[in-house]
Amino acid sequence: MKKRLNEDTLLRKIGEASRGSHGGGVRFGIGDDAAIWKPTRGYEAVLTCDWSLEGSHFLLEKHPADAIGWKSLARATSDIAAMGATARCYLLSLALPTELTGRWLTNFLNGLGRASRKFGCVAAGGDTTRRKETFISITVVGEVRPGRAILRAGAKAGDALFVSGTLGEADLGLRELVARRGMGRATNAALRKHMYPEPRLELGRWLAEKKLATAMMDVSDGLSTDLRRLCAASGVGARVEADALPRVELQDRADAVKLALHGGDDYELLFCVRKTDAGRVPSTVGGVRLTRVGEMAAGGKVVVVEDGKERALNAGGWDPFRE
Amino acid sequence: MKKRLNEDTLLRKIGEASRGSHGGGVRFGIGDDAAIWKPTRGYEAVLTCDWSLEGSHFLLEKHPADAIGWKSLARATSDIAAMGATARCYLLSLALPTELTGRWLTNFLNGLGRASRKFGCVAAGGDTTRRKETFISITVVGEVRPGRAILRAGAKAGDALFVSGTLGEADLGLRELVARRGMGRATNAALRKHMYPEPRLELGRWLAEKKLATAMMDVSDGLSTDLRRLCAASGVGARVEADALPRVELQDRADAVKLALHGGDDYELLFCVRKTDAGRVPSTVGGVRLTRVGEMAAGGKVVVVEDGKERALNAGGWDPFRE
Repeated sequence: MKKRLNEDTLLRKIGEASRGSHGGGVRFGIGDDAAIWKPTRGYEAVLTCDWSLEGSHFLLEKHPADAIGWKSLARATSDIAAMGATARCYLLSLALPTELTGRWLTNFLNGLGRASRKFGCVAAGGDTTRRKETFISITVVGEVRPGRAILRAGAKAGDALFVSGTLGEADLGLRELVARRGMGRATNAALRKHMYPEPRLELGRWLAEKKLATAMMDVSDGLSTDLRRLCAASGVGARVEADALPRVELQDRADAVKLALHGGDDYELLFCVRKTDAGRVPSTVGGVRLTRVGEMAAGGKVVVVEDGKERALNAGGWDPFRE
Repeated sequence: MKKRLNEDTLLRKIGEASRGSHGGGVRFGIGDDAAIWKPTRGYEAVLTCDWSLEGSHFLLEKHPADAIGWKSLARATSDIAAMGATARCYLLSLALPTELTGRWLTNFLNGLGRASRKFGCVAAGGDTTRRKETFISITVVGEVRPGRAILRAGAKAGDALFVSGTLGEADLGLRELVARRGMGRATNAALRKHMYPEPRLELGRWLAEKKLATAMMDVSDGLSTDLRRLCAASGVGARVEADALPRVELQDRADAVKLALHGGDDYELLFCVRKTDAGRVPSTVGGVRLTRVGEMAAGGKVVVVEDGKERALNAGGWDPFRE
């Protein structure tokens, strides 16, 4: 007899998905009206939410369920890293068709659970409903010492601009995924970065502890789009050196630069450091490479310098409302 | 010239929607990677999320945008009330088609903003994306004194069972809304309750302060479905007196009882009180009527007594995964 799945069973499964991770301060996570979460004494809570929608953020025929689970949590957790905070727990809103409540859901929750343990971020609650398409919204709750969060506003003209990891790598992975037939597999670094991104939690916390960064955000929609946001929040401009960008190795150098400037989904950290502190930034933190890619400038102009020529760096990344 | 709307503008609008409500302890709410929220010293955070999906929870041709905004927040906030907690802030995940980013969005945010001020729950952040259909997921963050939250588990056999307000009223409102032509208007109490439900925050807090309730939850999916959840969590059964149910006035009494037993969307509070404390429960709290509707019983059976006959009260409310 086929056992009928109901919402309560589903929620229990979600709760079990992050078994093995730290308690995260969560009590009565799943199975009550709401979860109770106790921040570490004296800390402030950091809150963020992120969509992962079928067709917009993933394709059921291309992205394995466990990668969808992993990335849904990684996307939201990256915002916590971008504040210099520690991730603690998450809430999952999940809408999915009945035919995905079997093996697909198990694999999705496996990916989510693996991410949950890796990021130290436990399931605190959720809401599930049936729908023809699959939608996920995840809220992540983190914490930070008062006054230690690194905001987007705070950069000053003259600050050095740094970025972690490699830019454009996830977009290259997406390109490969789309070009290949059938379900995606993480067979190289680019595909791995596209499918299983790792929020830079350790780097974010390190920068917050050292009080090194004057401003920070994560690069999720592409450098050209996100740097403009950081500049707008700080009331400054920026000058990016195309040659300095940590980019993927491609035969077509111009293509690699374009990917680095506009490619989305990298979940790297973009941060500013006072010029006099720039020498204190190491080449790696926790195995993640840090690269100085430019500097902040007076005025609001955001420019890129390539082959000695300066041009405006227009937002060419992802904006869901751009026609 | 038509101004192009982008995601940043949309998020700013969301932030403005709850202007005029208390600060809620939120800093850097909209416009950074994440919001920072400071719980009141010594309090614990209460976290919940809820879907509101076009076609499942609302119809664009029947529900005015401001009612959709109001109810999306009310649905999630009701879970905070059900813990005996105070609502503080919320995060909005919003997916909508470009053609709804004008007047519809303004009205939606007006409804959300009115609810936000009424519930004392400010916008802390959000994520927006474009989609053919309209989906909303709201996370509400509240707070409660340690040990004061009222859980679903805790009811004992012999406890008196109470419910707030009138049961089945919102379902009656939905029925009227569907029967009428065109866009819904809140022209009577039932339609008002369906379109603009009011989470029982004051009652929840009052019960938590008085330490009166042994168990509590909100009735969102219908009494027959939700009472079974409370019983399962507490490991007890329950006996409901059909005659005692606070129900809508209908010519067809059986229909009114059915609505009270199974009708969803009421967002009333269902709570248990030790028999010896039952006399301390007043007839109203903050203008909301409280009615004793039965008692908790040993064993797991949930029954309803009508015309002297006892029968099993099977879950007949809303479960999105029931075929």
